Amino acid sequence: MSEPPFAGAARQANLGDACVAVVGLGLMGGSLAGALKMRRACRRVVGVARRRSTLDEAQRRGWIDAGATNLAAGVADADLVILATPPRVIIAQLDELGPAAPAGCVVMDLGSVKSAIVQAMERLPAGVYPLGGHPMCGKEQAGLEAADPLLFEGRRFVLTPLERTPASTLALGRALALAIGAQPLVLDAETHDRMVAWVSHLPHLAALALVRAVMVGARRDPQVWSLAASGFRDTSRLAASDLTMLLDIFIANREPVLATLQTFQSELTRLGAALEREDEPALRQLLDEAITQRREVCG
Amino acid sequence: MSEPPFAGAARQANLGDACVAVVGLGLMGGSLAGALKMRRACRRVVGVARRRSTLDEAQRRGWIDAGATNLAAGVADADLVILATPPRVIIAQLDELGPAAPAGCVVMDLGSVKSAIVQAMERLPAGVYPLGGHPMCGKEQAGLEAADPLLFEGRRFVLTPLERTPASTLALGRALALAIGAQPLVLDAETHDRMVAWVSHLPHLAALALVRAVMVGARRDPQVWSLAASGFRDTSRLAASDLTMLLDIFIANREPVLATLQTFQSELTRLGAALEREDEPALRQLLDEAITQRREVCG
Repeated sequence: MSEPPFAGAARQANLGDACVAVVGLGLMGGSLAGALKMRRACRRVVGVARRRSTLDEAQRRGWIDAGATNLAAGVADADLVILATPPRVIIAQLDELGPAAPAGCVVMDLGSVKSAIVQAMERLPAGVYPLGGHPMCGKEQAGLEAADPLLFEGRRFVLTPLERTPASTLALGRALALAIGAQPLVLDAETHDRMVAWVSHLPHLAALALVRAVMVGARRDPQVWSLAASGFRDTSRLAASDLTMLLDIFIANREPVLATLQTFQSELTRLGAALEREDEPALRQLLDEAITQRREVCG
Repeated sequence: MSEPPFAGAARQANLGDACVAVVGLGLMGGSLAGALKMRRACRRVVGVARRRSTLDEAQRRGWIDAGATNLAAGVADADLVILATPPRVIIAQLDELGPAAPAGCVVMDLGSVKSAIVQAMERLPAGVYPLGGHPMCGKEQAGLEAADPLLFEGRRFVLTPLERTPASTLALGRALALAIGAQPLVLDAETHDRMVAWVSHLPHLAALALVRAVMVGARRDPQVWSLAASGFRDTSRLAASDLTMLLDIFIANREPVLATLQTFQSELTRLGAALEREDEPALRQLLDEAITQRREVCG
């Protein structure tokens, strides 16, 4: 471990000169490593993965300069450590990072829930600078094979600073987001979690429940799947997500997710009640409001 | 009106020699007319639309040979009439068609609900041959501008014969489906309606309720829409559908739709309950089953 330039300051405030350790080379971490290298955004990228074969493949693609299967070894020279594993693994790794992170290093993550992770970041030793992060992009496929250095292009990259996060660390986070083509947006962790529960976690739950509901229908009409067209495919797409990630997200963001689920159920009940009583004017208004809002948001 | 070749037989059992009247030149009717002309599947296509400008545009594209703004005039020489208007308009037009359809002509429709339409078809006079139809494809955009002669390519085309439908009429329906690149599938109307409630109407309801739920979230966090990414966009895509069509579908297929809604809500409740009590093994199993099923169906 090298010493920071002076006590209480980050090792490296300039992304261009930084050694970045990306921990986890799946969809998000692989894409990030690739984006950093492709855009020559930093001095050096070190990948950390459980399997040697993942590191080999990332190196073959030119997405990392070096690799390690051991967290402490991988972050030993890092100015910036970015945890790109599933939320609960991030939390476990933060505790491991405490003694392992070089003094003065910045620790970020890419997890899709923030409060639980930011709480775990509070436990990092002084002299390590934490910052929560969440790029608003993804796809169902997991793993390095699905990674894409252009994944972040034009997407929001939420940054959730802690009280202890220095301004220079937040600036480094912004620089990182911009360097990979994303738009930084600073939010507190709680607000982030409430907001992603609405636009990300609830859609996942809806997609999963939709598939489960049609499974019930298929008991009587096994041919039902043969009629599934693009409408079903799109509405259920998020049900093809990675199981570990889904479980982590729902459990780590349990209360906000349950709140959105309750509202979703109320809106379903309201639509069903208008249809049940054949109240066409009411149903028309409920549908019209949703159609108008969807057009406004998604064009 | 010309006489059929002999009493009780269709005017024209061969699609290639048929004059086809397509009533309604929106997304479905326009696409069908275009597909028939592009593939030279029939002798002649006559379009029926409310507005002269729609007929002009369809003619300019080469999708119809002639047009009429009056239903009776448009179907006067038809061997096959295909109603491609919203479900409740189809039902009204069937009653209008009774006295107007030439003896021996086949009457089909492309409506996305079948029981209510097939019931209205029962009222057609003897010597007119009805057959319900529903191509399983679509998009949110409505109107001739969104029409596409390749819309039916590789999609299921459900045919719902009535008891009175002669075998030759069903054969003509199959020929039509194959001629536009679709795969015919014969079902009774009730089974069709139950099945599309699961894979089409319920996804529409889920998408609409999802948008409405996030509207509630946006009251507290107006920035919530700015975090909506591809997951929200896809899950809510069906909420961008045409209002008239949605209302017609939900109301015409009310009971099956309400039944699917009830099951959907039960599955949401079950997911929510497992999350609420932090029962990770139960939650894992519920998610895993849905993920596995979705992969099996959609790849």
